[in-house]
Amino acid sequence: MGRCIVVSKIAWIGTGVMGRQQAGHLVKAGHTVKAYSRRYEAVCQQAKEFGFAPCATIREAVADAEFVFVMVGYPADVEQVFCGPEGILENAPAGAVVVDMTTSSPTLAQKLYALGKEKGIAVMDAPVSGGDKGAREATLSIMVGGDEEAFEKTLPLFECMGKSVLLMGPAGYGQHTKAANQIAVAGATAAYTEAILYAEKAGLDPHKMLAAIGGGAAGSWQIANMAPRALAGDFAPGFFVKHFIKDMKIIREEAAQRGVELEMLDSVLHLYEEFAAAGGENEGTQALIDFYRKK
Amino acid sequence: MGRCIVVSKIAWIGTGVMGRQQAGHLVKAGHTVKAYSRRYEAVCQQAKEFGFAPCATIREAVADAEFVFVMVGYPADVEQVFCGPEGILENAPAGAVVVDMTTSSPTLAQKLYALGKEKGIAVMDAPVSGGDKGAREATLSIMVGGDEEAFEKTLPLFECMGKSVLLMGPAGYGQHTKAANQIAVAGATAAYTEAILYAEKAGLDPHKMLAAIGGGAAGSWQIANMAPRALAGDFAPGFFVKHFIKDMKIIREEAAQRGVELEMLDSVLHLYEEFAAAGGENEGTQALIDFYRKK
Repeated sequence: MGRCIVVSKIAWIGTGVMGRQQAGHLVKAGHTVKAYSRRYEAVCQQAKEFGFAPCATIREAVADAEFVFVMVGYPADVEQVFCGPEGILENAPAGAVVVDMTTSSPTLAQKLYALGKEKGIAVMDAPVSGGDKGAREATLSIMVGGDEEAFEKTLPLFECMGKSVLLMGPAGYGQHTKAANQIAVAGATAAYTEAILYAEKAGLDPHKMLAAIGGGAAGSWQIANMAPRALAGDFAPGFFVKHFIKDMKIIREEAAQRGVELEMLDSVLHLYEEFAAAGGENEGTQALIDFYRKK
Repeated sequence: MGRCIVVSKIAWIGTGVMGRQQAGHLVKAGHTVKAYSRRYEAVCQQAKEFGFAPCATIREAVADAEFVFVMVGYPADVEQVFCGPEGILENAPAGAVVVDMTTSSPTLAQKLYALGKEKGIAVMDAPVSGGDKGAREATLSIMVGGDEEAFEKTLPLFECMGKSVLLMGPAGYGQHTKAANQIAVAGATAAYTEAILYAEKAGLDPHKMLAAIGGGAAGSWQIANMAPRALAGDFAPGFFVKHFIKDMKIIREEAAQRGVELEMLDSVLHLYEEFAAAGGENEGTQALIDFYRKK
């Protein structure tokens, strides 16, 4: 017996490390996916592996789309693909649902929601956690902000990409949740990095130290998963330093608007900015230990 | 059939929230335990519940001890009970093993080890993690520094109090490991506190936020166990703010001796010092959220 799905017409904007994998899962589920990337040759190349139809322009990709997904790098990129004259809001049909999965600004998410509403387009923010591994294995956590109706319509598609999908509130609340997530990641990352550095300088075996502390009140996903990579000198980016800095800067802006000081986060942002200035921006976040060692 | 153990003569110095429970486990295992606390009436009272013999002086407690355990508050207290004229090193018999389980200074641990050696007394440092709950349930993690022979002799006693007991290296290395542990706890504590604060100010439901992020890369023991207590307003001390500050100050001193800067740790110490100055020193570490909210 065949499985019956409602085939959706989907446009995917941004086919980087994350986006190409996510778009591929939608193709595998039987949907029709047109994909656009700034680099047309790249998206043509990827099309062979992931099965989507490459498009040379956003206009072409979104013209008949029921759903548009965006996964790009920075808030400025998001704004451009949504609001540019050749962008999504000018070219997607009324009635479409447009989902930004980039980790971006909550304030921008609310602005895009309002602009979409004027055109009969339902905009949602749906940043993810779980990294390249989560994208590849369709185990992302997806944190959604937007209208309930659009969320329900999109849920079967989200479920092709992630294992936890939660509507957190109205537009911007997906981004706010991701912001809280990144605050916790910042603390946990600095935690294992400074613990390793201290252990090394004190003459402890850092592997033995991690084994002694990882199972108790000091334990974390970061200690279990990233600290061993940091110790092994495996600095390949699962999550780029430059993207972590972008996230922390967005959080700081949003916090400042609310008169909130996040002192720990500021210290971690400062460390990563120094690391980036010293040439680390394209390394994985776990490479911070190397920067500390050389300080 | 009865269980056969070698009954040891034990002195226990310091019967606070942790020490009385640990001493009680040694009594339950069949050992002879004499206990001393600065407050003689308190130790007499506790003796009824925990079964140890109360002593009015350290001299009396340690005079015939094969093992002496110390669990007091601050490094100055440790130094006093070891080195005072009425203290352990003057009064314990040669051949005794003396174990300091206080979270204290690695440098002091090495000094006490050397002083002990001159008198034929084997001194070890063995700080713990797991808090009052771990002490009560005998599930502490015990991080030991000292000589292998003394460690092997003491292991059956450690196993009455903890589930993970590791010799980390020579004298001071137990304290170094606990320092690394506290660095990681500091990062994870600030992480959940700032994530909750941000969520509250952004209008997110903080319980829902914790549920959304706790299972992924942001997850930690602190998020799973302490963040819910912080949200519930349950600020009862499992771990006192004043003791956390003591630990972080020791770490900073040790790090400074090695020319190491721990920027994240400094920011968390600064926050807790402000909180203590505002009257929080006798609250549990999770009460930091309340200080942030009022800032």
